Amino acid sequence: MVSTIFFTPGPAALYPTVQNHVNEAFVNNIGSISHRGKAFQNIYEETDKQLRKLLGIPSDFKILFTGSATEIWERIIQSTVTKKSAHFVNGSFSSKFYDFSKELGFEAQKFEVPFGEGFYVDNYEIDQDAELICVTHNETSAGVVTPVAEINKLRAQYPNALIAVDAVSSVPNPEFDFSKIDSVFFSVQKGMGLPAGLGVWVVNERVISKAKDKLNQGGIIGTYHSVLSLVKNAEKFETPSTPNVLAIYLLGKVVADMNEKTVETIRKETNEKITLLYEFAAKSSILEPFVKDPYHQSPTVFVATVKGVEPSELISKLKENGLTIGSGYGNFKSSQIRIANFPATSVENIKLLISTLEKFYA
Amino acid sequence: MVSTIFFTPGPAALYPTVQNHVNEAFVNNIGSISHRGKAFQNIYEETDKQLRKLLGIPSDFKILFTGSATEIWERIIQSTVTKKSAHFVNGSFSSKFYDFSKELGFEAQKFEVPFGEGFYVDNYEIDQDAELICVTHNETSAGVVTPVAEINKLRAQYPNALIAVDAVSSVPNPEFDFSKIDSVFFSVQKGMGLPAGLGVWVVNERVISKAKDKLNQGGIIGTYHSVLSLVKNAEKFETPSTPNVLAIYLLGKVVADMNEKTVETIRKETNEKITLLYEFAAKSSILEPFVKDPYHQSPTVFVATVKGVEPSELISKLKENGLTIGSGYGNFKSSQIRIANFPATSVENIKLLISTLEKFYA
Repeated sequence: MVSTIFFTPGPAALYPTVQNHVNEAFVNNIGSISHRGKAFQNIYEETDKQLRKLLGIPSDFKILFTGSATEIWERIIQSTVTKKSAHFVNGSFSSKFYDFSKELGFEAQKFEVPFGEGFYVDNYEIDQDAELICVTHNETSAGVVTPVAEINKLRAQYPNALIAVDAVSSVPNPEFDFSKIDSVFFSVQKGMGLPAGLGVWVVNERVISKAKDKLNQGGIIGTYHSVLSLVKNAEKFETPSTPNVLAIYLLGKVVADMNEKTVETIRKETNEKITLLYEFAAKSSILEPFVKDPYHQSPTVFVATVKGVEPSELISKLKENGLTIGSGYGNFKSSQIRIANFPATSVENIKLLISTLEKFYA
Repeated sequence: MVSTIFFTPGPAALYPTVQNHVNEAFVNNIGSISHRGKAFQNIYEETDKQLRKLLGIPSDFKILFTGSATEIWERIIQSTVTKKSAHFVNGSFSSKFYDFSKELGFEAQKFEVPFGEGFYVDNYEIDQDAELICVTHNETSAGVVTPVAEINKLRAQYPNALIAVDAVSSVPNPEFDFSKIDSVFFSVQKGMGLPAGLGVWVVNERVISKAKDKLNQGGIIGTYHSVLSLVKNAEKFETPSTPNVLAIYLLGKVVADMNEKTVETIRKETNEKITLLYEFAAKSSILEPFVKDPYHQSPTVFVATVKGVEPSELISKLKENGLTIGSGYGNFKSSQIRIANFPATSVENIKLLISTLEKFYA
């Protein structure tokens, strides 16, 4: 296979240190160690510690592991909702989060804006009996961000509801205020630069307490991956069933590398890279940013409408030159492209992508 | 870390070719490719093809992927049961499968024998309204097998019920008669010799049809990982959400290696190795097979009560000599040991383990 640099929004480019950590994992028998032994507990504890440092997760939040972030959409609804959830929907992923609530038999309030637009949360009135408010921080499909400042407005207005933030394609870039949210979750194949197969679920005591209430009222909260079962096992740095041990190990190692670089540097570079992309688009004749409102332009997934050339042709041309970018999502496949701006992608790689685009489409 | 040979029942020894396949996976960008592209579809299709060959899975069965076999306990109950399931319980894992049905709000009929004993299914009367009969082919905790001949008796007696077989710690050894069962499932960190993080779920049309009926009657079958959602995506060799792509790739590669060796050779060696272990136990002063009835002695997980020495001491002694065996499960930790007999473990390794035991405990 031709060597290529990935700019796809997930699965995405691997963080540069991943392969070395995998080799080390084989030396350390990570594929064979028991998930009920001290060696695994140490791995969980280390990954937990590194994640807290990188993302500023307070000690009163638990860090849990699932098979994917998609699973967490289901688990958080199943574990905490008895009647109604509320959803900000502005793309394919936030829409699926909403669908899950209905499929699980609950009422789901939906606030929807067209693909490519974002939210000013004050414009919406959430029902006071909504138990869980679901916000997708970064819509991977449309490249729209719901800024942390918007998310932070919810708590004061809806003090009784749990606030859950899907940060799948934005972590570790956003600086969340954990006093204003109850749960944040993500998968590892995007910003973390790891192979897919692990979801990370951060929850506070309010989530746990709500699940206990639901269970005590005779509600069904699921089985091994209910938040209560996950938390009970996490108390001793274990998981309810055999997890993706290798992924938890690799996550700890990669996050340690990120911490060494410092999250501040990563965020600074993220800003630098996305600025380069928007500056290029501003003067380019072929790319037009899809998201018009700068407040809602994602810093981590750049989405553009392609003009004067077929997106598939542009994608092929770049691929021949060792650069793999993402297609538009769903119905936008024939008109858009997507470029991920995750920590694994260096400033140099973004510059190379831009100069290659300039060369072919000057 | 000291180099060691794993004889643990899961996570277990890696199949000898795994590390090479992982290296190749990095060359082929398996960690970054899209799960919505042709490259991934080819991987799924190849793994599907190799599994069908190895296990003799007929074309009218679908092969689906989840995060773990534990997840499949939940998904099959959630997808197919509206009122009642029935469970043969003879250890910790079959007991959890039973618990899941109750936790999901269903009636669950339980047939239970003490730890270390097995089932003659004719001795039990399953309620005719049980919709799902759950059999654990091999109880990893106790080393007890429910022979395929027993499982095959169920269909004629209970033609309306779905028959689901947990084959977590026995695949690829048993030769299932797929005309007599509706579903079989397993995880990859045991007999398949891979790192944990993937469940494999094989289902026939009867399972799919029952899920459709449940949904049509207003039942809740879950969301992205309901059997219907998984099957719909599997039709085009895709998954509902980003799966553990690397694990699906590695599974296809390792099963191809097993197919090259042939499943007949693997089963012959499995028999040869377990015979060596039982012959050793018969003459040993320290090991007494836990399962007394030869009909129920597991060919893939050997469990023995340890006499004249503390199991923890025996385990440590072996570990110092580069051999890692499993402890007894749960309450049996202080009296038993477990030795896995999976394809990754060679005849030579079993002979080395036995000769080491003979040296220290003659």
